[in-house]
Amino acid sequence: MAPLKACSAWNGCHSTTTAPCDMTDNSRRLLQFMEEVWNTGDVAAVDDFLAEQYIIHSDPGDPWDGKTLSREGFKSRLATSRAPFPDLRFDLDDIIADGDRVAVSWIMRGTQLGPLGGRPPSGRSIAVRGMTIYYFEQGRITGHRQVVDRLTVAQQLGLAG
Amino acid sequence: MAPLKACSAWNGCHSTTTAPCDMTDNSRRLLQFMEEVWNTGDVAAVDDFLAEQYIIHSDPGDPWDGKTLSREGFKSRLATSRAPFPDLRFDLDDIIADGDRVAVSWIMRGTQLGPLGGRPPSGRSIAVRGMTIYYFEQGRITGHRQVVDRLTVAQQLGLAG
Repeated sequence: MAPLKACSAWNGCHSTTTAPCDMTDNSRRLLQFMEEVWNTGDVAAVDDFLAEQYIIHSDPGDPWDGKTLSREGFKSRLATSRAPFPDLRFDLDDIIADGDRVAVSWIMRGTQLGPLGGRPPSGRSIAVRGMTIYYFEQGRITGHRQVVDRLTVAQQLGLAG
Repeated sequence: MAPLKACSAWNGCHSTTTAPCDMTDNSRRLLQFMEEVWNTGDVAAVDDFLAEQYIIHSDPGDPWDGKTLSREGFKSRLATSRAPFPDLRFDLDDIIADGDRVAVSWIMRGTQLGPLGGRPPSGRSIAVRGMTIYYFEQGRITGHRQVVDRLTVAQQLGLAG
């Protein structure tokens, strides 16, 4: 696993590649996870971050809502989720750490360059807000809760008024 | 302001009237705020909880998104938001405290018994997930960020497919 490039003064956490020096270990791990796994789409990196079982406690609209995934199952979710938006990227605007839990507020951006739900690539861009609580155990991520402003996604993709 | 009725063992935080004993002061204040202000609709209680200015940093779809409210402005937002759903109620399923910030995951339930956006009362019920980060300063709430699964609200009210 690549180390964080540097630590720096707190800057509102817009970068996931340089972490503030006073961040908790779990917060730093989460920034790495977001960068390597979600922003880069590095399927192999999943093994470094995830516990053997990953529980999606609640995530309305996510096809895996409520499911418990193996690492292989998570890799499949990652690849399937990123396929319609190959340039998918999360930028964080707040991170809140409390013991084994880390909450993040983010904006997800991407361009629909792949098929999505039977619809061909639209070339449309999305920029949507969401928040996630990640659960850790001994430095490994064991699951999450998440809320995404799906109405904005539907509007930006031309699926809702 | 009414004191919390009791403190109790952590029970997943489903009740906003009894708080776990090991909770931070800001978390306890937030549970009181949610119960007295949002669940009860006690407009007068706003003065006990809010700083003089309340900033809505981000809250997609909220008519006050991006605005800075006085306490009177917040009371107006509270009354306007609850009018369509007089039985509005937030139940928390996680609370994460980190210094001056407290993140909560919740389910909001209510029945549309009042007019909403020009539409007459529908009698329809909503149950929707969301997350909020509340910002504190010296025990007073200075603002929030929030994401609500608005697509579910639209579907439950019969406004989306």
